[in-house]
Amino acid sequence: VIALLNGRSTGEVPVVDRGLAYGDGLFETIKVIDGCAQFLTEHLARLSRDCLRLAMQLDLTNLRTEIAQILVAADSGVLKLIITRDATTRGYQASPGAAAQRLLIFFPQHFPPLDPLPSGIQVRLCRQHLAEQPSLAGMKHLNRLEQVMARSEWSDPNIAEGLMMDRCSRLIEGVASNLFLVRAGTVYTPRLHRCGVAGVVRDLVLHKMASDCAPVFETDLMLDDLVAADEVFLSNSLIGIMPVLKIDCLHKMRGDVTIAFQQCFQKLCLQESIANECR
Amino acid sequence: VIALLNGRSTGEVPVVDRGLAYGDGLFETIKVIDGCAQFLTEHLARLSRDCLRLAMQLDLTNLRTEIAQILVAADSGVLKLIITRDATTRGYQASPGAAAQRLLIFFPQHFPPLDPLPSGIQVRLCRQHLAEQPSLAGMKHLNRLEQVMARSEWSDPNIAEGLMMDRCSRLIEGVASNLFLVRAGTVYTPRLHRCGVAGVVRDLVLHKMASDCAPVFETDLMLDDLVAADEVFLSNSLIGIMPVLKIDCLHKMRGDVTIAFQQCFQKLCLQESIANECR
Repeated sequence: VIALLNGRSTGEVPVVDRGLAYGDGLFETIKVIDGCAQFLTEHLARLSRDCLRLAMQLDLTNLRTEIAQILVAADSGVLKLIITRDATTRGYQASPGAAAQRLLIFFPQHFPPLDPLPSGIQVRLCRQHLAEQPSLAGMKHLNRLEQVMARSEWSDPNIAEGLMMDRCSRLIEGVASNLFLVRAGTVYTPRLHRCGVAGVVRDLVLHKMASDCAPVFETDLMLDDLVAADEVFLSNSLIGIMPVLKIDCLHKMRGDVTIAFQQCFQKLCLQESIANECR
Repeated sequence: VIALLNGRSTGEVPVVDRGLAYGDGLFETIKVIDGCAQFLTEHLARLSRDCLRLAMQLDLTNLRTEIAQILVAADSGVLKLIITRDATTRGYQASPGAAAQRLLIFFPQHFPPLDPLPSGIQVRLCRQHLAEQPSLAGMKHLNRLEQVMARSEWSDPNIAEGLMMDRCSRLIEGVASNLFLVRAGTVYTPRLHRCGVAGVVRDLVLHKMASDCAPVFETDLMLDDLVAADEVFLSNSLIGIMPVLKIDCLHKMRGDVTIAFQQCFQKLCLQESIANECR
Protein backbone atom coordinates (compact mmCIF):
# COMPACT_ATOMS: atom_id res chain seq x y z
CA VAL A 1 0.00 0.00 0.00
CA ILE A 2 1.39 3.37 -1.10
CA ALA A 3 -0.01 6.49 0.58
CA LEU A 4 0.46 10.25 0.35
CA LEU A 5 -0.86 12.76 2.91
CA ASN A 6 -0.81 16.30 1.53
CA GLY A 7 1.93 15.21 -0.85
CA ARG A 8 4.09 13.56 1.79
CA SER A 9 4.67 9.82 1.63
CA THR A 10 3.29 8.24 4.80
CA GLY A 11 1.46 5.26 6.23
CA GLU A 12 -0.36 7.22 8.90
CA VAL A 13 -2.65 10.17 9.64
CA PRO A 14 -2.63 12.39 12.78
CA VAL A 15 -4.74 11.02 15.65
CA VAL A 16 -6.67 14.30 15.79
CA ASP A 17 -7.88 13.99 12.17
CA ARG A 18 -11.59 14.90 11.97
CA GLY A 19 -12.09 12.10 9.45
CA LEU A 20 -11.29 9.68 12.26
CA ALA A 21 -13.03 11.64 15.03
CA TYR A 22 -16.32 12.32 13.25
CA GLY A 23 -16.16 10.91 9.73
CA ASP A 24 -15.92 14.58 8.75
CA GLY A 25 -14.85 14.09 5.16
CA LEU A 26 -15.37 12.41 1.81
CA PHE A 27 -13.85 9.64 -0.23
CA GLU A 28 -13.50 8.45 -3.81
CA THR A 29 -12.73 4.94 -5.03
CA ILE A 30 -11.08 5.10 -8.43
CA LYS A 31 -10.20 2.17 -10.68
CA VAL A 32 -6.64 2.31 -12.00
CA ILE A 33 -5.76 0.29 -15.10
CA ASP A 34 -2.13 0.31 -16.22
CA GLY A 35 -1.44 3.50 -14.30
CA CYS A 36 -4.51 5.25 -15.69
CA ALA A 37 -7.25 6.53 -13.32
CA GLN A 38 -10.62 5.82 -14.90
CA PHE A 39 -13.11 8.70 -15.04
CA LEU A 40 -10.82 10.87 -12.95
CA THR A 41 -12.53 14.04 -14.22
CA GLU A 42 -15.90 12.72 -13.08
CA HIS A 43 -14.56 11.59 -9.70
CA LEU A 44 -12.95 14.97 -9.05
CA ALA A 45 -16.12 16.79 -10.14
CA ARG A 46 -18.19 14.77 -7.67
CA LEU A 47 -15.58 15.32 -4.95
CA SER A 48 -15.55 19.08 -5.57
CA ARG A 49 -19.34 19.23 -5.49
CA ASP A 50 -19.49 17.32 -2.19
CA CYS A 51 -16.68 19.46 -0.69
CA LEU A 52 -18.85 22.50 -1.42
CA ARG A 53 -21.79 20.87 0.40
CA LEU A 54 -19.59 20.19 3.44
CA ALA A 55 -17.94 23.65 3.19
CA MET A 56 -14.49 22.08 2.88
CA GLN A 57 -11.74 23.92 1.03
CA LEU A 58 -10.08 21.40 -1.28
CA ASP A 59 -6.86 22.30 -3.10
CA LEU A 60 -7.65 20.56 -6.40
CA THR A 61 -4.37 21.60 -8.05
CA ASN A 62 -2.29 19.90 -5.39
CA LEU A 63 -4.62 16.90 -5.41
CA ARG A 64 -4.13 16.45 -9.17
CA THR A 65 -0.36 16.66 -8.76
CA GLU A 66 -0.43 14.05 -6.00
CA ILE A 67 -2.65 11.72 -8.05
CA ALA A 68 -0.18 11.97 -10.94
CA GLN A 69 2.65 11.25 -8.52
CA ILE A 70 0.94 8.05 -7.29
CA LEU A 71 -0.04 6.93 -10.78
CA VAL A 72 3.54 7.14 -12.08
CA ALA A 73 4.48 4.26 -9.80
CA ALA A 74 1.15 2.41 -10.12
CA ASP A 75 0.12 -0.48 -12.30
CA SER A 76 -3.46 -1.69 -11.75
CA GLY A 77 -5.44 -1.29 -8.56
CA VAL A 78 -7.69 0.99 -6.57
CA LEU A 79 -6.83 4.60 -5.83
CA LYS A 80 -8.68 5.76 -2.77
CA LEU A 81 -8.88 9.49 -2.02
CA ILE A 82 -9.87 10.45 1.52
CA ILE A 83 -10.51 14.15 2.04
CA THR A 84 -10.98 15.24 5.65
CA ARG A 85 -11.44 18.54 7.43
CA ASP A 86 -8.37 19.83 9.21
CA ALA A 87 -8.58 19.84 13.00
CA THR A 88 -7.02 22.41 15.28
CA THR A 89 -9.03 21.83 18.46
CA ARG A 90 -11.19 19.11 20.00
CA GLY A 91 -14.96 19.24 19.53
CA TYR A 92 -17.50 19.38 16.73
CA GLN A 93 -16.87 23.01 15.80
CA ALA A 94 -14.62 23.27 12.74
CA SER A 95 -12.17 26.10 12.26
CA PRO A 96 -13.64 28.46 9.66
CA GLY A 97 -11.85 28.00 6.35
CA ALA A 98 -10.01 24.91 7.62
CA ALA A 99 -8.07 23.35 4.76
CA ALA A 100 -9.01 19.87 3.58
CA GLN A 101 -6.42 17.15 4.20
CA ARG A 102 -5.67 15.07 1.10
CA LEU A 103 -4.95 11.40 1.71
CA LEU A 104 -4.28 9.18 -1.30
CA ILE A 105 -3.95 5.42 -0.88
CA PHE A 106 -3.15 3.02 -3.68
CA PHE A 107 -4.15 -0.64 -3.29
CA PRO A 108 -2.62 -2.81 -6.03
CA GLN A 109 -5.25 -5.14 -7.47
CA HIS A 110 -5.61 -7.20 -10.62
CA PHE A 111 -8.87 -6.76 -12.53
CA PRO A 112 -10.34 -9.38 -14.86
CA PRO A 113 -10.30 -8.34 -18.55
CA LEU A 114 -13.38 -6.45 -19.77
CA ASP A 115 -13.87 -9.01 -22.54
CA PRO A 116 -15.93 -11.20 -22.23
CA LEU A 117 -18.43 -8.98 -20.42
CA PRO A 118 -19.28 -10.38 -16.96
CA SER A 119 -22.36 -12.58 -17.02
CA GLY A 120 -23.65 -11.51 -13.62
CA ILE A 121 -23.69 -11.89 -9.87
CA GLN A 122 -25.87 -13.12 -7.05
CA VAL A 123 -27.02 -10.57 -4.44
CA ARG A 124 -29.18 -10.48 -1.35
CA LEU A 125 -31.60 -8.11 0.33
CA CYS A 126 -30.17 -6.56 3.51
CA ARG A 127 -32.10 -6.21 6.75
CA GLN A 128 -30.09 -3.08 7.64
CA HIS A 129 -31.90 -0.08 6.22
CA LEU A 130 -30.61 3.35 5.27
CA ALA A 131 -31.70 6.34 7.35
CA GLU A 132 -33.17 9.35 5.56
CA GLN A 133 -30.90 12.37 5.85
CA PRO A 134 -31.42 14.83 2.98
CA SER A 135 -28.52 17.06 4.07
CA LEU A 136 -26.06 14.19 3.55
CA ALA A 137 -27.86 12.24 0.80
CA GLY A 138 -25.96 11.65 -2.42
CA MET A 139 -22.55 12.40 -0.91
CA LYS A 140 -19.78 9.83 -0.66
CA HIS A 141 -18.95 10.89 2.89
CA LEU A 142 -17.07 8.96 5.56
CA ASN A 143 -20.09 8.08 7.76
CA ARG A 144 -20.52 4.52 6.56
CA LEU A 145 -21.60 2.46 9.56
CA GLU A 146 -24.87 1.52 7.85
CA GLN A 147 -22.88 -0.05 5.01
CA VAL A 148 -20.57 -1.80 7.49
CA MET A 149 -23.61 -3.22 9.33
CA ALA A 150 -25.26 -4.29 6.07
CA ARG A 151 -22.09 -5.96 4.76
CA SER A 152 -21.73 -7.89 8.03
CA GLU A 153 -25.04 -9.67 7.38
CA TRP A 154 -23.45 -12.31 5.13
CA SER A 155 -20.13 -14.04 4.62
CA ASP A 156 -21.05 -16.40 1.76
CA PRO A 157 -18.48 -15.53 -0.96
CA ASN A 158 -21.03 -16.47 -3.64
CA ILE A 159 -23.09 -13.43 -2.68
CA ALA A 160 -21.34 -10.46 -4.21
CA GLU A 161 -23.51 -7.57 -3.00
CA GLY A 162 -26.47 -6.64 -0.81
CA LEU A 163 -29.39 -4.40 -1.71
CA MET A 164 -30.47 -1.77 0.80
CA MET A 165 -33.83 -0.09 1.36
CA ASP A 166 -34.89 2.91 3.40
CA ARG A 167 -37.32 2.73 6.33
CA CYS A 168 -40.28 2.98 3.98
CA SER A 169 -39.04 -0.10 2.09
CA ARG A 170 -37.97 1.94 -0.91
CA LEU A 171 -35.05 0.31 -2.71
CA ILE A 172 -32.08 2.69 -2.64
CA GLU A 173 -28.83 1.05 -3.70
CA GLY A 174 -26.37 -1.77 -3.15
CA VAL A 175 -24.03 -1.63 -0.15
CA ALA A 176 -21.27 -0.39 -2.48
CA SER A 177 -23.10 0.14 -5.77
CA ASN A 178 -26.06 1.81 -7.44
CA LEU A 179 -29.13 -0.08 -8.55
CA PHE A 180 -30.97 -0.17 -11.89
CA LEU A 181 -34.16 -2.02 -12.79
CA VAL A 182 -35.19 -2.60 -16.40
CA ARG A 183 -38.83 -2.94 -17.34
CA ALA A 184 -40.22 -2.99 -20.86
CA GLY A 185 -37.03 -1.54 -22.29
CA THR A 186 -36.84 1.38 -19.86
CA VAL A 187 -34.35 1.70 -17.01
CA TYR A 188 -35.27 2.99 -13.55
CA THR A 189 -32.88 3.92 -10.75
CA PRO A 190 -33.77 5.08 -7.22
CA ARG A 191 -33.84 8.78 -6.46
CA LEU A 192 -31.11 9.66 -3.97
CA HIS A 193 -32.38 12.85 -2.34
CA ARG A 194 -33.19 11.14 0.98
CA CYS A 195 -30.25 8.74 1.27
CA GLY A 196 -27.76 6.84 -0.86
CA VAL A 197 -24.57 7.66 -2.72
CA ALA A 198 -24.73 9.24 -6.18
CA GLY A 199 -22.09 7.10 -7.87
CA VAL A 200 -19.91 8.27 -10.74
CA VAL A 201 -20.94 5.36 -13.00
CA ARG A 202 -24.62 5.94 -12.09
CA ASP A 203 -24.13 9.48 -13.32
CA LEU A 204 -22.59 8.19 -16.56
CA VAL A 205 -25.56 5.84 -17.03
CA LEU A 206 -27.99 8.71 -16.54
CA HIS A 207 -26.22 11.40 -18.54
CA LYS A 208 -23.86 9.75 -21.03
CA MET A 209 -25.09 6.25 -21.80
CA ALA A 210 -28.88 6.60 -21.70
CA SER A 211 -29.07 8.32 -25.08
CA ASP A 212 -27.26 5.42 -26.81
CA CYS A 213 -28.81 2.51 -24.89
CA ALA A 214 -32.22 3.04 -23.33
CA PRO A 215 -34.12 5.78 -21.48
CA VAL A 216 -33.18 6.00 -17.77
CA PHE A 217 -35.39 7.59 -15.13
CA GLU A 218 -34.85 8.39 -11.46
CA THR A 219 -37.86 7.39 -9.40
CA ASP A 220 -38.98 5.75 -6.16
CA LEU A 221 -38.73 1.97 -6.43
CA MET A 222 -40.25 -0.64 -4.14
CA LEU A 223 -39.74 -4.38 -3.73
CA ASP A 224 -42.64 -5.01 -6.11
CA ASP A 225 -40.69 -3.19 -8.80
CA LEU A 226 -37.73 -5.49 -8.18
CA VAL A 227 -39.96 -8.53 -8.54
CA ALA A 228 -41.54 -7.15 -11.70
CA ALA A 229 -38.25 -6.08 -13.30
CA ASP A 230 -37.17 -7.88 -16.49
CA GLU A 231 -33.52 -7.18 -15.77
CA VAL A 232 -31.51 -5.82 -12.83
CA PHE A 233 -28.04 -4.38 -12.86
CA LEU A 234 -25.65 -2.61 -10.50
CA SER A 235 -22.92 -0.06 -11.09
CA ASN A 236 -19.83 1.22 -9.41
CA SER A 237 -16.36 2.36 -10.38
CA LEU A 238 -14.76 -1.03 -9.86
CA ILE A 239 -17.38 -3.40 -11.31
CA GLY A 240 -18.66 -1.03 -14.02
CA ILE A 241 -22.07 -2.32 -15.11
CA MET A 242 -22.83 -5.66 -13.45
CA PRO A 243 -25.89 -7.81 -14.26
CA VAL A 244 -27.76 -9.30 -11.29
CA LEU A 245 -28.87 -12.91 -11.86
CA LYS A 246 -30.28 -13.73 -8.48
CA ILE A 247 -31.65 -11.75 -5.48
CA ASP A 248 -32.17 -14.25 -2.67
CA CYS A 249 -34.54 -16.75 -4.36
CA LEU A 250 -35.62 -14.36 -7.13
CA HIS A 251 -34.02 -15.15 -10.51
CA LYS A 252 -33.34 -12.58 -13.23
CA MET A 253 -31.95 -12.82 -16.78
CA ARG A 254 -29.11 -10.76 -18.18
CA GLY A 255 -31.19 -9.19 -20.94
CA ASP A 256 -30.56 -7.01 -23.96
CA VAL A 257 -30.81 -3.69 -22.16
CA THR A 258 -28.23 -4.67 -19.54
CA ILE A 259 -25.91 -6.00 -22.25
CA ALA A 260 -26.33 -2.74 -24.17
CA PHE A 261 -25.26 -0.75 -21.09
CA GLN A 262 -22.33 -3.12 -20.49
CA GLN A 263 -21.16 -2.61 -24.07
CA CYS A 264 -21.77 1.10 -23.90
CA PHE A 265 -19.74 1.34 -20.69
CA GLN A 266 -16.92 -0.69 -22.23
CA LYS A 267 -16.86 1.72 -25.19
CA LEU A 268 -16.85 4.71 -22.81
CA CYS A 269 -13.88 3.25 -20.91
CA LEU A 270 -12.01 2.67 -24.15
CA GLN A 271 -12.75 6.18 -25.46
CA GLU A 272 -11.64 7.67 -22.19
CA SER A 273 -8.37 5.75 -22.11
CA ILE A 274 -7.60 6.87 -25.68
CA ALA A 275 -8.51 10.49 -24.91
CA ASN A 276 -6.30 10.46 -21.82
CA GLU A 277 -3.45 8.77 -23.69
CA CYS A 278 -3.23 6.02 -21.09
CA ARG A 279 -0.22 3.84 -21.46
CA VAL B 1 -1.52 16.14 23.13
CA ILE B 2 -0.40 12.71 24.41
CA ALA B 3 -1.64 9.64 22.52
CA LEU B 4 -1.35 5.87 22.80
CA LEU B 5 -2.35 3.40 20.07
CA ASN B 6 -2.64 -0.14 21.43
CA GLY B 7 -0.25 0.85 24.20
CA ARG B 8 2.33 2.43 21.89
CA SER B 9 3.03 6.15 22.17
CA THR B 10 2.20 7.77 18.83
CA GLY B 11 0.73 10.80 17.16
CA GLU B 12 -0.74 8.89 14.24
CA VAL B 13 -3.00 6.03 13.14
CA PRO B 14 -2.58 3.81 10.05
CA VAL B 15 -4.16 5.24 6.88
CA VAL B 16 -6.18 2.02 6.44
CA ASP B 17 -7.91 2.39 9.85
CA ARG B 18 -11.63 1.60 9.47
CA GLY B 19 -12.41 4.43 11.89
CA LEU B 20 -11.11 6.82 9.25
CA ALA B 21 -12.47 4.91 6.25
CA TYR B 22 -16.02 4.37 7.49
CA GLY B 23 -16.35 5.77 11.00
CA ASP B 24 -16.40 2.10 12.00
CA GLY B 25 -15.86 2.57 15.70
CA LEU B 26 -16.83 4.26 18.95
CA PHE B 27 -15.56 6.99 21.21
CA GLU B 28 -15.70 8.16 24.79
CA THR B 29 -15.00 11.64 26.14
CA ILE B 30 -13.91 11.44 29.75
CA LYS B 31 -13.27 14.34 32.12
CA VAL B 32 -9.96 14.08 33.95
CA ILE B 33 -9.49 16.07 37.17
CA ASP B 34 -6.08 15.93 38.84
CA GLY B 35 -5.21 12.71 37.05
CA CYS B 36 -8.53 11.05 37.92
CA ALA B 37 -10.90 9.88 35.16
CA GLN B 38 -14.47 10.73 36.21
CA PHE B 39 -17.05 7.93 35.96
CA LEU B 40 -14.55 5.66 34.23
CA THR B 41 -16.53 2.56 35.22
CA GLU B 42 -19.66 3.98 33.58
CA HIS B 43 -17.76 5.08 30.44
CA LEU B 44 -16.19 1.64 30.03
CA ALA B 45 -19.55 -0.06 30.64
CA ARG B 46 -21.16 2.01 27.88
CA LEU B 47 -18.19 1.37 25.58
CA SER B 48 -18.36 -2.39 26.19
CA ARG B 49 -22.11 -2.41 25.52
CA ASP B 50 -21.68 -0.49 22.25
CA CYS B 51 -18.76 -2.74 21.19
CA LEU B 52 -21.12 -5.70 21.56
CA ARG B 53 -23.69 -3.98 19.34
CA LEU B 54 -21.03 -3.37 16.67
CA ALA B 55 -19.56 -6.87 17.16
CA MET B 56 -16.13 -5.43 17.99
CA GLN B 57 -13.77 -7.38 20.24
CA LEU B 58 -12.39 -4.91 22.78
CA ASP B 59 -9.53 -5.90 25.06
CA LEU B 60 -10.74 -4.15 28.20
CA THR B 61 -7.80 -5.29 30.34
CA ASN B 62 -5.28 -3.68 28.02
CA LEU B 63 -7.48 -0.60 27.70
CA ARG B 64 -7.56 -0.15 31.49
CA THR B 65 -3.76 -0.49 31.67
CA GLU B 66 -3.33 2.10 28.92
CA ILE B 67 -5.75 4.52 30.62
CA ALA B 68 -3.76 4.18 33.87
CA GLN B 69 -0.57 4.80 31.89
CA ILE B 70 -1.95 8.06 30.43
CA LEU B 71 -3.41 9.24 33.74
CA VAL B 72 -0.07 8.90 35.56
CA ALA B 73 1.30 11.73 33.45
CA ALA B 74 -1.97 13.70 33.28
CA ASP B 75 -3.22 16.64 35.30
CA SER B 76 -6.64 17.97 34.23
CA GLY B 77 -8.12 17.61 30.78
CA VAL B 78 -10.12 15.44 28.43
CA LEU B 79 -9.30 11.79 27.83
CA LYS B 80 -10.69 10.67 24.51
CA LEU B 81 -10.91 6.96 23.73
CA ILE B 82 -11.37 6.03 20.08
CA ILE B 83 -12.06 2.35 19.46
CA THR B 84 -12.00 1.27 15.81
CA ARG B 85 -12.30 -2.02 13.98
CA ASP B 86 -9.04 -3.41 12.67
CA ALA B 87 -8.69 -3.43 8.89
CA THR B 88 -6.90 -6.06 6.88
CA THR B 89 -8.35 -5.43 3.44
CA ARG B 90 -10.15 -2.64 1.58
CA GLY B 91 -13.94 -2.64 1.48
CA TYR B 92 -16.89 -2.67 3.86
CA GLN B 93 -16.54 -6.32 4.86
CA ALA B 94 -14.80 -6.65 8.21
CA SER B 95 -12.55 -9.57 9.05
CA PRO B 96 -14.47 -11.87 11.39
CA GLY B 97 -13.20 -11.47 14.94
CA ALA B 98 -11.08 -8.44 13.97
CA ALA B 99 -9.56 -6.93 17.11
CA ALA B 100 -10.54 -3.42 18.14
CA GLN B 101 -7.79 -0.80 17.93
CA ARG B 102 -7.46 1.25 21.11
CA LEU B 103 -6.53 4.91 20.63
CA LEU B 104 -6.24 7.10 23.73
CA ILE B 105 -5.73 10.84 23.36
CA PHE B 106 -5.29 13.23 26.26
CA PHE B 107 -6.06 16.90 25.74
CA PRO B 108 -4.90 19.04 28.70
CA GLN B 109 -7.63 21.48 29.72
CA HIS B 110 -8.41 23.56 32.78
CA PHE B 111 -11.94 23.23 34.16
CA PRO B 112 -13.65 25.91 36.24
CA PRO B 113 -14.21 24.89 39.91
CA LEU B 114 -17.53 23.10 40.63
CA ASP B 115 -18.33 25.68 43.29
CA PRO B 116 -20.26 27.95 42.70
CA LEU B 117 -22.52 25.79 40.50
CA PRO B 118 -22.78 27.22 36.97
CA SER B 119 -25.75 29.53 36.57
CA GLY B 120 -26.54 28.49 33.01
CA ILE B 121 -25.99 28.88 29.30
CA GLN B 122 -27.66 30.15 26.19
CA VAL B 123 -28.48 27.65 23.42
CA ARG B 124 -30.16 27.62 20.02
CA LEU B 125 -32.39 25.33 18.01
CA CYS B 126 -30.53 23.74 15.07
CA ARG B 127 -31.94 23.44 11.56
CA GLN B 128 -29.94 20.24 10.99
CA HIS B 129 -32.04 17.31 12.09
CA LEU B 130 -31.04 13.84 13.23
CA ALA B 131 -31.90 10.88 11.00
CA GLU B 132 -33.74 7.93 12.53
CA GLN B 133 -31.55 4.84 12.58
CA PRO B 134 -32.59 2.40 15.33
CA SER B 135 -29.65 0.07 14.70
CA LEU B 136 -27.20 2.86 15.59
CA ALA B 137 -29.33 4.88 18.04
CA GLY B 138 -27.92 5.42 21.51
CA MET B 139 -24.35 4.54 20.55
CA LYS B 140 -21.48 7.00 20.72
CA HIS B 141 -20.15 5.91 17.33
CA LEU B 142 -17.82 7.75 14.99
CA ASN B 143 -20.43 8.73 12.37
CA ARG B 144 -20.92 12.32 13.50
CA LEU B 145 -21.46 14.39 10.36
CA GLU B 146 -24.91 15.45 11.56
CA GLN B 147 -23.34 16.96 14.66
CA VAL B 148 -20.61 18.64 12.58
CA MET B 149 -23.28 20.15 10.30
CA ALA B 150 -25.37 21.30 13.28
CA ARG B 151 -22.38 22.85 15.06
CA SER B 152 -21.46 24.75 11.89
CA GLU B 153 -24.76 26.66 12.04
CA TRP B 154 -23.45 29.23 14.50
CA SER B 155 -20.18 30.87 15.52
CA ASP B 156 -21.45 33.26 18.22
CA PRO B 157 -19.36 32.31 21.29
CA ASN B 158 -22.26 33.32 23.55
CA ILE B 159 -24.24 30.36 22.29
CA ALA B 160 -22.85 27.32 24.06
CA GLU B 161 -24.90 24.54 22.52
CA GLY B 162 -27.53 23.70 19.90
CA LEU B 163 -30.64 21.56 20.33
CA MET B 164 -31.42 18.97 17.68
CA MET B 165 -34.70 17.40 16.60
CA ASP B 166 -35.54 14.43 14.41
CA ARG B 167 -37.48 14.68 11.14
CA CYS B 168 -40.78 14.53 13.02
CA SER B 169 -39.74 17.58 15.09
CA ARG B 170 -39.22 15.53 18.23
CA LEU B 171 -36.54 17.05 20.44
CA ILE B 172 -33.69 14.56 20.82
CA GLU B 173 -30.57 16.10 22.36
CA GLY B 174 -27.96 18.82 22.21
CA VAL B 175 -25.19 18.60 19.60
CA ALA B 176 -22.87 17.26 22.32
CA SER B 177 -25.19 16.82 25.29
CA ASN B 178 -28.44 15.25 26.48
CA LEU B 179 -31.59 17.26 27.13
CA PHE B 180 -33.90 17.40 30.14
CA LEU B 181 -37.12 19.36 30.55
CA VAL B 182 -38.67 20.00 33.96
CA ARG B 183 -42.41 20.47 34.34
CA ALA B 184 -44.32 20.58 37.61
CA GLY B 185 -41.43 19.01 39.50
CA THR B 186 -40.99 16.08 37.10
CA VAL B 187 -38.09 15.67 34.66
CA TYR B 188 -38.51 14.42 31.10
CA THR B 189 -35.76 13.40 28.70
CA PRO B 190 -36.14 12.25 25.09
CA ARG B 191 -36.21 8.55 24.32
CA LEU B 192 -33.18 7.58 22.26
CA HIS B 193 -34.29 4.44 20.45
CA ARG B 194 -34.52 6.15 17.06
CA CYS B 195 -31.49 8.45 17.22
CA GLY B 196 -29.30 10.27 19.71
CA VAL B 197 -26.45 9.34 22.03
CA ALA B 198 -27.19 7.77 25.42
CA GLY B 199 -24.77 9.83 27.51
CA VAL B 200 -23.08 8.59 30.67
CA VAL B 201 -24.35 11.53 32.75
CA ARG B 202 -27.86 11.08 31.29
CA ASP B 203 -27.69 7.53 32.56
CA LEU B 204 -26.63 8.78 36.01
CA VAL B 205 -29.55 11.23 36.03
CA LEU B 206 -31.98 8.43 35.18
CA HIS B 207 -30.61 5.69 37.41
CA LYS B 208 -28.62 7.26 40.23
CA MET B 209 -29.82 10.80 40.80
CA ALA B 210 -33.57 10.58 40.13
CA SER B 211 -34.35 8.87 43.44
CA ASP B 212 -32.72 11.70 45.43
CA CYS B 213 -33.85 14.65 43.32
CA ALA B 214 -36.99 14.26 41.25
CA PRO B 215 -38.68 11.60 39.11
CA VAL B 216 -37.21 11.34 35.58
CA PHE B 217 -39.04 9.81 32.62
CA GLU B 218 -37.97 9.00 29.09
CA THR B 219 -40.59 10.10 26.61
CA ASP B 220 -41.14 11.76 23.23
CA LEU B 221 -40.80 15.53 23.55
CA MET B 222 -41.87 18.19 21.06
CA LEU B 223 -41.17 21.91 20.73
CA ASP B 224 -44.38 22.64 22.66
CA ASP B 225 -42.93 20.75 25.61
CA LEU B 226 -39.84 22.94 25.46
CA VAL B 227 -41.98 26.07 25.48
CA ALA B 228 -44.08 24.75 28.36
CA ALA B 229 -41.10 23.57 30.44
CA ASP B 230 -40.46 25.35 33.77
CA GLU B 231 -36.77 24.52 33.61
CA VAL B 232 -34.39 23.09 31.02
CA PHE B 233 -31.00 21.53 31.57
CA LEU B 234 -28.35 19.66 29.60
CA SER B 235 -25.83 17.02 30.59
CA ASN B 236 -22.57 15.62 29.38
CA SER B 237 -19.32 14.36 30.88
CA LEU B 238 -17.54 17.71 30.63
CA ILE B 239 -20.28 20.15 31.65
CA GLY B 240 -22.03 17.84 34.12
CA ILE B 241 -25.53 19.26 34.71
CA MET B 242 -25.92 22.60 32.95
CA PRO B 243 -28.98 24.87 33.28
CA VAL B 244 -30.31 26.42 30.08
CA LEU B 245 -31.38 30.06 30.48
CA LYS B 246 -32.23 30.93 26.91
CA ILE B 247 -33.20 28.99 23.75
CA ASP B 248 -33.18 31.50 20.89
CA CYS B 249 -35.70 34.07 22.22
CA LEU B 250 -37.27 31.76 24.78
CA HIS B 251 -36.20 32.49 28.36
CA LYS B 252 -36.03 29.92 31.16
CA MET B 253 -35.18 30.11 34.86
CA ARG B 254 -32.66 27.97 36.68
CA GLY B 255 -35.19 26.44 39.08
CA ASP B 256 -35.11 24.25 42.17
CA VAL B 257 -35.20 20.94 40.33
CA THR B 258 -32.20 21.83 38.14
CA ILE B 259 -30.28 23.08 41.19
CA ALA B 260 -31.11 19.84 43.00
CA PHE B 261 -29.65 17.81 40.11
CA GLN B 262 -26.59 20.08 39.98
CA GLN B 263 -25.98 19.54 43.70
CA CYS B 264 -26.69 15.84 43.42
CA PHE B 265 -24.21 15.52 40.56
CA GLN B 266 -21.59 17.47 42.51
CA LYS B 267 -22.07 15.07 45.43
CA LEU B 268 -21.80 12.07 43.09
CA CYS B 269 -18.52 13.42 41.65
CA LEU B 270 -17.14 13.93 45.16
CA GLN B 271 -18.21 10.46 46.33
CA GLU B 272 -16.66 8.91 43.26
CA SER B 273 -13.35 10.73 43.67
CA ILE B 274 -13.16 9.59 47.31
CA ALA B 275 -14.09 6.00 46.43
CA ASN B 276 -11.44 5.93 43.69
CA GLU B 277 -8.84 7.52 45.98
CA CYS B 278 -8.12 10.25 43.44
CA ARG B 279 -5.10 12.30 44.25
